Amino acid sequence: MSNPVVIDAAPGQSYADITREFEAPVEAVFRAHADPDLFARWIGPRGLETKITAWDFRTGGGYAFVQTDRKGGAFEFRGVFHTVRENELIVQTFEWLGAPDQVSLDAMRFEDLGGGRSRLVDHSVFPSVEALEAMVAEGMERGLTEGYEKLDELVGGE
Amino acid sequence: MSNPVVIDAAPGQSYADITREFEAPVEAVFRAHADPDLFARWIGPRGLETKITAWDFRTGGGYAFVQTDRKGGAFEFRGVFHTVRENELIVQTFEWLGAPDQVSLDAMRFEDLGGGRSRLVDHSVFPSVEALEAMVAEGMERGLTEGYEKLDELVGGE
Repeated sequence: MSNPVVIDAAPGQSYADITREFEAPVEAVFRAHADPDLFARWIGPRGLETKITAWDFRTGGGYAFVQTDRKGGAFEFRGVFHTVRENELIVQTFEWLGAPDQVSLDAMRFEDLGGGRSRLVDHSVFPSVEALEAMVAEGMERGLTEGYEKLDELVGGE
Repeated sequence: MSNPVVIDAAPGQSYADITREFEAPVEAVFRAHADPDLFARWIGPRGLETKITAWDFRTGGGYAFVQTDRKGGAFEFRGVFHTVRENELIVQTFEWLGAPDQVSLDAMRFEDLGGGRSRLVDHSVFPSVEALEAMVAEGMERGLTEGYEKLDELVGGE
């Protein structure tokens, strides 16, 4: 059994707190966010192939990737890293180019739970209540659930 | 008489829409955001001196500046530019290092009103309702009002 993703989004608010525990050390979970080859192997729902097109993982850097499905559909994403603090914090912007200029901001905190376990808390802020609701409707939970299951497999969790 | 700053922040929400019209063309108002020497001359309330410490005004770039008051107090700010589209849109992060890791996201739209007039609409998204309320309490309106009055003087508006 994989650990659950808990999405805490108060009704009428434009942000969500997304919490997920890992049966792996914080360093491994952070590295899966820092290393583009690892990142490409877990981000997003199953059935999509991810290609990193830009990667500069540092405070002030940025990223871009494209995901393709089996029908040939392509989904492009990009953002900038406001803060990168190793094994502790990533603050980054996020834009799906299918909804241009609808930029969200994620603050991801990596917590060491001891005993080789860790917790990731993502405070995800959207430009409006509607933008968050649209993201939920478009399968946010499935994307997170399946993505983190793939991350489990990478870092040797359950 | 200078034009008013209109701050539209719904109670209980974590974002605000800040609207200001200028008696100057959109190109001039945008340039005052793009050029570090001009930017330093208007940003923030009166009585502070601004020194730009980093400036890379492009999509994927970043900025940092420090403001000092007459008593020697210093206030440091920094962020990254998610999007820069000339005379149209700036999407950027913003952090006052006095409240570390409390990062907000601004989407600033520049609108040509014709007749040499323009409008700036800043959709400013905070990480929480409390963070927005704290910014309002710390003099957000005065900083904006006085800053935009200095911008008027720079671009030849009223």
